[in-house]
Amino acid sequence: MLEPFYCPTSVAVIGASRDETKLGHAVVKNLLECGYQGRIYPINLKDDEILGLQAYASVLTVPGDIELTVVVVPDRFVATVLEECGQKGVRGVVVITAGFREVGGEGLKKEKELVDIVRRYDMRMLGPNCLGVIDTICPLNASFARGMPQQGEIAMMSQSGALLMAIHDWALGEGVGFSRFVSLGNKADIDETDLLQLWDDDPHTKVIVAYLEGIADGPEFMKIAEHVGRETPIIAIKAGTSDAGARAVSSHTGTLAGSERAYDAAFKQAGITRADSVEELFQYAHAFSEATPIKGDRIAVVSNAGGAAIMATDALDRAHLQLATFQRETIELLQRQLPPGSNALNPVDVRGDSDAEMYRFALDAVLRDGNVDGVIAILIPQAVTKVDETAHAIIEVVRQHDKPVLSSFMGKNLADVGVEILRDADIPNYSYPEPAVDAMRAMVERWRWLEKPPRTMKRFDVDRKKVEQAFAAVRDDGRVKVGDAEARQIMEAYGFTIPQSELARDPDEAVAIAEKIGYPVVMKVTSPDILHKTDIGGVKLNIMSASDVRDAFDLLMYRAYRYMPQAEVWGALVQEMVPQGKEVIIGVNRDPQFGPLLLLGLGGIYVEILKDASFRIAPVARWEAEEMIGELRSAPLLHGIRGEKPSDLGAIVDCVLRVSQLAVDFPEIVELDINPLMVHEEGKGAVALDMRLILS
Amino acid sequence: MLEPFYCPTSVAVIGASRDETKLGHAVVKNLLECGYQGRIYPINLKDDEILGLQAYASVLTVPGDIELTVVVVPDRFVATVLEECGQKGVRGVVVITAGFREVGGEGLKKEKELVDIVRRYDMRMLGPNCLGVIDTICPLNASFARGMPQQGEIAMMSQSGALLMAIHDWALGEGVGFSRFVSLGNKADIDETDLLQLWDDDPHTKVIVAYLEGIADGPEFMKIAEHVGRETPIIAIKAGTSDAGARAVSSHTGTLAGSERAYDAAFKQAGITRADSVEELFQYAHAFSEATPIKGDRIAVVSNAGGAAIMATDALDRAHLQLATFQRETIELLQRQLPPGSNALNPVDVRGDSDAEMYRFALDAVLRDGNVDGVIAILIPQAVTKVDETAHAIIEVVRQHDKPVLSSFMGKNLADVGVEILRDADIPNYSYPEPAVDAMRAMVERWRWLEKPPRTMKRFDVDRKKVEQAFAAVRDDGRVKVGDAEARQIMEAYGFTIPQSELARDPDEAVAIAEKIGYPVVMKVTSPDILHKTDIGGVKLNIMSASDVRDAFDLLMYRAYRYMPQAEVWGALVQEMVPQGKEVIIGVNRDPQFGPLLLLGLGGIYVEILKDASFRIAPVARWEAEEMIGELRSAPLLHGIRGEKPSDLGAIVDCVLRVSQLAVDFPEIVELDINPLMVHEEGKGAVALDMRLILS
Repeated sequence: MLEPFYCPTSVAVIGASRDETKLGHAVVKNLLECGYQGRIYPINLKDDEILGLQAYASVLTVPGDIELTVVVVPDRFVATVLEECGQKGVRGVVVITAGFREVGGEGLKKEKELVDIVRRYDMRMLGPNCLGVIDTICPLNASFARGMPQQGEIAMMSQSGALLMAIHDWALGEGVGFSRFVSLGNKADIDETDLLQLWDDDPHTKVIVAYLEGIADGPEFMKIAEHVGRETPIIAIKAGTSDAGARAVSSHTGTLAGSERAYDAAFKQAGITRADSVEELFQYAHAFSEATPIKGDRIAVVSNAGGAAIMATDALDRAHLQLATFQRETIELLQRQLPPGSNALNPVDVRGDSDAEMYRFALDAVLRDGNVDGVIAILIPQAVTKVDETAHAIIEVVRQHDKPVLSSFMGKNLADVGVEILRDADIPNYSYPEPAVDAMRAMVERWRWLEKPPRTMKRFDVDRKKVEQAFAAVRDDGRVKVGDAEARQIMEAYGFTIPQSELARDPDEAVAIAEKIGYPVVMKVTSPDILHKTDIGGVKLNIMSASDVRDAFDLLMYRAYRYMPQAEVWGALVQEMVPQGKEVIIGVNRDPQFGPLLLLGLGGIYVEILKDASFRIAPVARWEAEEMIGELRSAPLLHGIRGEKPSDLGAIVDCVLRVSQLAVDFPEIVELDINPLMVHEEGKGAVALDMRLILS
Repeated sequence: MLEPFYCPTSVAVIGASRDETKLGHAVVKNLLECGYQGRIYPINLKDDEILGLQAYASVLTVPGDIELTVVVVPDRFVATVLEECGQKGVRGVVVITAGFREVGGEGLKKEKELVDIVRRYDMRMLGPNCLGVIDTICPLNASFARGMPQQGEIAMMSQSGALLMAIHDWALGEGVGFSRFVSLGNKADIDETDLLQLWDDDPHTKVIVAYLEGIADGPEFMKIAEHVGRETPIIAIKAGTSDAGARAVSSHTGTLAGSERAYDAAFKQAGITRADSVEELFQYAHAFSEATPIKGDRIAVVSNAGGAAIMATDALDRAHLQLATFQRETIELLQRQLPPGSNALNPVDVRGDSDAEMYRFALDAVLRDGNVDGVIAILIPQAVTKVDETAHAIIEVVRQHDKPVLSSFMGKNLADVGVEILRDADIPNYSYPEPAVDAMRAMVERWRWLEKPPRTMKRFDVDRKKVEQAFAAVRDDGRVKVGDAEARQIMEAYGFTIPQSELARDPDEAVAIAEKIGYPVVMKVTSPDILHKTDIGGVKLNIMSASDVRDAFDLLMYRAYRYMPQAEVWGALVQEMVPQGKEVIIGVNRDPQFGPLLLLGLGGIYVEILKDASFRIAPVARWEAEEMIGELRSAPLLHGIRGEKPSDLGAIVDCVLRVSQLAVDFPEIVELDINPLMVHEEGKGAVALDMRLILS
């Protein structure tokens, strides 16, 4: 379906121009100069010939077939031109012209019109408001960016044309190779998910990099990314993560920026490597496209300079990677062979006066070690260093092993000869040890993701109908907040353990219920208008007798009406007093791009004051719920400190999964909070004491 | 005293050689080729002439005076050669020769010998085991690193010769300017503090950068850095921060690596900007040496590309800088003048089709805004962008304002022309927006440090003699642990509020004391051999009656003997039961390089499980103690959450200052913990319930 954008048999440029200052000229020129083998048709009302090619007044007057068109006419003509493309049987259109959704109002309407035309004729459209597409394999340069990057195995998509332009310019200057370059523009039709799918089995692409400001369909994107990413690493910048940045995003391309938490969780779950800058994006891309994938997190450092070795070791520590502990044979071998003053332990320092042979020997010994999963190889050109020979030695050794080696030849004048040799041999080289370590960390994180079990979702047997009825009742009432009694029904229906309780409409009924449950009891004011009961003193704990029940009832009624005189108050809930345990919060917030975002944290101050919480997009697998617990800084409290018994983690996981299922089953849930979930000792379960629910 | 290392009138190279592969050849050649104007004397036993210069057999046979010598003879001859230098009246020696402290054992002894000679003759020595010294101002290249960097305003010192070599090579390749380049080597005589002092009033140096693996005298270094840093920014890498890295440091140069926490606190207190990599070091150095110092933290972004503006905004958010809110006039001005589709709010997007005039206009408008303290100026070369003109426009505008502008011209082929123009005009430019933002953050942190009040230390009126006596008693006993009763004396002497209490040797005495204090009381086993009393059940709380006092006494004795049958048990301390408050920990650990490292945190899980603590090197000023509270993640608990009254922060600060004074007054204190300090509501003070003290 998207193949016309790879290597079409023919391309028409609608809006081609003889004027060298026009984009319509640049596009034709790029097509001519890039080595494109297909036919090129300039389309133009005035001229018969452009850059030596015969020009036509319309695609309809072109004699042959047209597979792809590039549109650079003013915005008011784009719709007409697309109609003609449809009539002509064109399969793909690249709309470079701007002035659509990104300008708002009328532009949005005009963009919808384009989409209608494209759908009607079963065409696919890139843009509008894009830079075009460059394919080094075909080769094809259907863009207004001058020059063709080298062939390489990185496919790049970008929602910002200018940023793509900067990367294109940098790729030309630095000789970095790419397979495809696609400017997404406004993503009216083709979006990031389409391209992921297109590049899935692309034999020319070993790594996909993306600059994104928003994602059209979060769940679909996650699904496809998870699938594609198994074979082809995906590295992405999500710009607009800050509140301030998000504001800039919406004024820039009109994309609704998803919340940072949701993106972070989604990328982690889908195995997307996240980069915070263009620099990181390519540092990671080089490692992923050139180095052998890593299969562990135990890293060795080989260096001809102690200072640089220490800095690499510090960076490994910051990246939470392990400094590999060598096997005894490796240490003995190194100690025997290395010159005096060297360090045979990790980080290995072969000293500045070692030659290429010695470097090769040390690197080889370290790579042979079964305790080493990957190596950072550092070289600083010193008095006797043979930079070129050392580079060749590294290449030879790397080819004999099945482990990644990321190198860092430091300096410039003297180092560059080595850097070029390494680049030609596809050894990722970094100007400093720190980015090499960062890239290694990205590789390790990918390995960890690949090692995780499949994200299979177990469904609990629940009473979905009951919840549907409860929600219907809420809607019928014209409410969005779910009341206490309804919340209890919903929790019961989805299998949460809840305390025994019953609603009392007057003091007598309250006493009767309390006697049935047995003392002590808890009483809570019950009103659809009062969500934060504790804030108004609407909860009384540890009530021990009938007379206390009567007092509490009256007190709660008084406080409810004082807080909101017109409140609808149903009475007081009389509840079993659940023994103290660890208070846990499980919450859901519906993210506009990814759907239900799950939150897990400890109650009290931990989530609220210390911001200690873990997030995932629902649905989650059991092992993901377990991971969530492990991510909490306060997790040791659940594991039991100072002789305390561990809490029932299984019960927490169970509740997370039930909440996940509930949130997925009912997209109308906008907010949900179980707070607190009272978690008891291992094997003794957890009781959901209160649930807050808001529907859309 | 150190001036000979700047620009000596004459230099002798001891160990000069005609053999081109020898360092002794490289040094003479560098001296000849660097443009050095003084006299050069090669010293060599075999040859009469080296590289066209008359050679001598010894410094003693040189006819004229020698101010500086560079020593490259084998290690066993160095001492003899230094003796001769001393006799000759040489003032400074650079010992390049290695084989001293860094190889351990015998090497350490040989190094001490060198220091003795140097001291005896009142010379100063750089090294041994160093690369030499390069001075672009003199000019002088008394090192074996080939080539002279451009003149510039950055002075660099490095404890790793190889790293200096890489930076030297990179400086030559990239055309980065330096004033001085000093390789510290083993720092047997001249160390980092000497160089800071030397560079204090250096008219050629605007910023000092350092690569350090350890610091010889922490408190002295802090004092000098704090003084020098007021005028000249200091940026430093401290390598060996990780445990693993620290191991590498000690095998590398034999420096005892100070603990990471202590370095972090010391650098923060002394206003040293810390860099984690060589890359960061120079990103900051450019900003500090070239841009106008910033005077606030409100940053504006001007860009010709929306995507890059968003990335800069995200980076500002990560760096905790403020995205400036423009004044209304600025917004209106920009809205009037910028082309349609631009963004007149911060970040300003002038759009890709703007010319240099429009860019100049926007940058000028933003710099005029009183709400803006600094600007990140981004340019991506696009279809119509005039890169050179825009660079010139930026330079002009920057010169008209007194605020820092850090630029980021992105790309390579097209961008480089602008980058060069900016570099020639001393506008710091960065390849991507993120490092520009990082450099801006470093500038803001320096501004914040300069704005802080002076670190004046108030001394409390205390009974120092009493503590001396208590410590003497401990020492006389052959103990290092201070017992409970002694600790009480010490706390009293230093003005801490402690609970009423008295030691009881038998149950009767315990009852008598309890009746005097009044119930409830607390009882604690008292033994110099038992430090962690709670762990053995050695503390009983809330004792309400005489019979309970008797029971508790016997129980505590039983438990003490069960725990350690041979323990010396003095009895039980009967103590006033202090009302519950917020539990705070104040601690001291003596750092081998910086001395007393203060810790402040909340008791219970906060320090222990959540690692939430703040650190400073003692002594601290009052405002620093206040800052420590503010740095705690758990600080909101002290400020009072959910209607709680705030805790007595003044009392906490007071205790921190008293602990600081105690730790400074008695360097024999190795460890000290007040845990818990029971802090009551504002105005109600804090009571030190327990203190643990260990002497050296």
